[in-house]
Amino acid sequence: MAGKEKDNLSAILVIFGGTGDLTNRKLMPALYNLVLDKLLPEHFAVVSIGRQDKTEEEYKKDIYESTKKHSRNKIDDTIWDELQRKIHYYRFDFTNAEGFIGLKDYLDMLDGQTGAGGNRVFYLAVAPVYFETIVHGLQISDMASKPDAWSRLVIEKPFGKDLKTARNLNSKILEVFSERDIYRIDHYLGKEMIQNIMVLRFCNSIFESIWNNKFIDNIQISLTEELGVGARGDYYDHAGAMRDMVQNHIIQILSLVALEPPINLKTDSIRTEKQKILEAIEDITPEFLRDNVVFGQYGPGVIDGSPVVGYREELNVPEDSGTETFVALKLHINNFRWAGIPFYIRTGKRLGQSSSNIVVQFKDMPKILYFKDKEIQDPNLLVLRIQPNVGVYFQFNTKDFSSHHEIVPTKMDTSYFSPTQGNTPEAYERLIHDILRGDSTLFSRWDEVEAAWMFADHLIQYREQNESTFPNYAAGSMGPEEAFELMAKDGRKWWQV
Amino acid sequence: MAGKEKDNLSAILVIFGGTGDLTNRKLMPALYNLVLDKLLPEHFAVVSIGRQDKTEEEYKKDIYESTKKHSRNKIDDTIWDELQRKIHYYRFDFTNAEGFIGLKDYLDMLDGQTGAGGNRVFYLAVAPVYFETIVHGLQISDMASKPDAWSRLVIEKPFGKDLKTARNLNSKILEVFSERDIYRIDHYLGKEMIQNIMVLRFCNSIFESIWNNKFIDNIQISLTEELGVGARGDYYDHAGAMRDMVQNHIIQILSLVALEPPINLKTDSIRTEKQKILEAIEDITPEFLRDNVVFGQYGPGVIDGSPVVGYREELNVPEDSGTETFVALKLHINNFRWAGIPFYIRTGKRLGQSSSNIVVQFKDMPKILYFKDKEIQDPNLLVLRIQPNVGVYFQFNTKDFSSHHEIVPTKMDTSYFSPTQGNTPEAYERLIHDILRGDSTLFSRWDEVEAAWMFADHLIQYREQNESTFPNYAAGSMGPEEAFELMAKDGRKWWQV
Repeated sequence: MAGKEKDNLSAILVIFGGTGDLTNRKLMPALYNLVLDKLLPEHFAVVSIGRQDKTEEEYKKDIYESTKKHSRNKIDDTIWDELQRKIHYYRFDFTNAEGFIGLKDYLDMLDGQTGAGGNRVFYLAVAPVYFETIVHGLQISDMASKPDAWSRLVIEKPFGKDLKTARNLNSKILEVFSERDIYRIDHYLGKEMIQNIMVLRFCNSIFESIWNNKFIDNIQISLTEELGVGARGDYYDHAGAMRDMVQNHIIQILSLVALEPPINLKTDSIRTEKQKILEAIEDITPEFLRDNVVFGQYGPGVIDGSPVVGYREELNVPEDSGTETFVALKLHINNFRWAGIPFYIRTGKRLGQSSSNIVVQFKDMPKILYFKDKEIQDPNLLVLRIQPNVGVYFQFNTKDFSSHHEIVPTKMDTSYFSPTQGNTPEAYERLIHDILRGDSTLFSRWDEVEAAWMFADHLIQYREQNESTFPNYAAGSMGPEEAFELMAKDGRKWWQV
Repeated sequence: MAGKEKDNLSAILVIFGGTGDLTNRKLMPALYNLVLDKLLPEHFAVVSIGRQDKTEEEYKKDIYESTKKHSRNKIDDTIWDELQRKIHYYRFDFTNAEGFIGLKDYLDMLDGQTGAGGNRVFYLAVAPVYFETIVHGLQISDMASKPDAWSRLVIEKPFGKDLKTARNLNSKILEVFSERDIYRIDHYLGKEMIQNIMVLRFCNSIFESIWNNKFIDNIQISLTEELGVGARGDYYDHAGAMRDMVQNHIIQILSLVALEPPINLKTDSIRTEKQKILEAIEDITPEFLRDNVVFGQYGPGVIDGSPVVGYREELNVPEDSGTETFVALKLHINNFRWAGIPFYIRTGKRLGQSSSNIVVQFKDMPKILYFKDKEIQDPNLLVLRIQPNVGVYFQFNTKDFSSHHEIVPTKMDTSYFSPTQGNTPEAYERLIHDILRGDSTLFSRWDEVEAAWMFADHLIQYREQNESTFPNYAAGSMGPEEAFELMAKDGRKWWQV
């Protein structure tokens, strides 16, 4: 089967949550784009599952309106017509396990109509609380395994809320789907610059030659947001910055920046190298937690000139919440390439700047020649800008021609402004196409998720077990004072580029 | 004396060739700038020597007009007045040796008026044929050596026309001046990017870390001109590209690009490192000359859409001239840093592009991962642009976000357009100021000149002793076919950036 998979994209895409927000805003516009770009297979159908009492006509009318609203493209009615003929609305309450038998029969019937050949993509566009329920339904109805056909499961984040729940969920899923058929979405992996990290490293001898502890002083990964939690207070208060950003996105970025060259570009080869990085992260001891981790929670402050409330005053957030909205940490990767080189990480909400980037700071030159009498030298910086600007920024020193003598840092920048990436319809277009093709490069493998939780759990527990002094930073600042001290005690600073 | 030199800028600047082109176009505008920038010492005078029968008033009127014409600044009469009060016209035919005694008395008299303290700068702004004559005059009149005062000699290029004449001239000069008091001007050293080579190398760990044969594939130095020989046919036909460009400018650039970090930034420390590079150039054997050197001479062709004549049809050029207007060559520097790495050099007139730059091509990545199925990969290039654009250009590979798959070369460029550098009034302002301060960093030391001649002589003799097939390239092309073959046989190409 494996050999033929790549060629056989025929399938029925079954969307659990077919009337939900994700389907309206992202999946349907993405499917429209796939038709437009002629990337959908000939034998293909979409089955949207919902509890709402709608006719198929009504459903199609609703998604036409929402696609028009959320698509960046102007909707061409010929293209839309081609898509809508492939879409079916199937009314069904998936908490009712018996209903899955009916769904199975319906899909088998559609196979006959469409020639999809039994292939299935089950897309869980629902709240995480329903993941197990649906997987169980697929199991008892025997929908996930067919001879001579494939079945794939797509899960939106979060995958569990800690190591234990993630393991539990995973073991349930593995009873039904094999690891290679599970597609765990991490939107960060869809961002252009994230996909570019490996290209920059492995297509440029000048970068790869110096990508190690002989030439690099430290690496900083910053994912900072001006936004607060908005209407997502309930979700966020159970997540915090650790689950919302560190456990998934930051760990992914860290592993892509640090991994050894894989033996080839196959998904598993890359994942194997990522996994090795996670395993090489230094032990999370009590001393590590005390010295290398800073949590924060924002109080009231000012963003863009306007006053904003503190986290505890946000909608659906308890007034004594101990949830962190900021994390800064320092860690080492104990392998031959990175031994001795600190990686600094920070992420948070309601900070003074929205910016995601990776700063590679190279070692200083010896304090001779031009730097003989200088206390401080501007180091070489290579910055991979992820968002909202995308591109490469490089800082180096040149002569200041106006003064004839001074050395000044000069900036090269290829960046362009691209505020929406990763969870746009365009990104979902690619993700759906990858799933149909059976390419899981941009999705997370279980051992990555598990290793990330093993790391994150230590930090989350430490935060939960210790008395918080929250709030400890003002909205609009760049985080708590301790985050700056984390750098200062090493004689370094956060680069705000 | 040495310790006090730096502080004591007081001097009389004696210009041989005071009514000549160089004085009118460059030296006087430079002196004007020095007054403007308050960089001239309090005790200072200029003595312009000429054969023309002019009164001092007439002379000053003439240079006022030419300074107005050639200065980039608008002439402020207050500033001009301050300068002109320091200027004296001394009528004297320097081919008459006895006249030097009178000059000496005149300068001594001016010492009394100005407080210049006996310090002298003798600036030879005359044709090279007079260099020895003037130096001899200074010798017999005992003008070059005074107790408790310094005397410096400034010589415009060319310094000799081969190793023998250069050695002869030098030994004559050394009877009168010590090496440290001889300032051999090489305008290329005044160009911004030339001065920047060492800063870029030694102020950026990312560059210096990979500045060797482990990471670099080859280095290309190109000094190409669209211009033909113009009205300078007589001079050029005795010089050729070897003497006009290679023996001086290119050898200087080569040594700055390749030198080891000096122990400090003192002139002699830098010169010592440059000298070591020249000594490490591979032996110029008959095989080397046969395989690694290409001479060319332009025939008629088209430049910027207009037909232009061939070299042999230029004014004051013999119609059977065997002089080269183009040289391409490949050489190795046999030290630990550069063993095995070819340096490619080309320079010529009437080429398709006017551009001086240094291209550092880094090694290819292994043909695995992204380059697995690619025959050719775009290498990383670091280009130091000397003129007419000045700056740093860097080419690296990124993902092509539009196609999702292809790797494309991306360019970063800090360059700005700066067509006139090095022999502008501004450059002469700096050179004169450096001479007064006793800083000879931007001038050539004898052993450098000698080593450069030793190298150049071999090539010039080889060209002279072999039957030429000139002309062998069309004006407006990038030189003879053999220059391209020089690269092609190594599997490389000239980068036209």
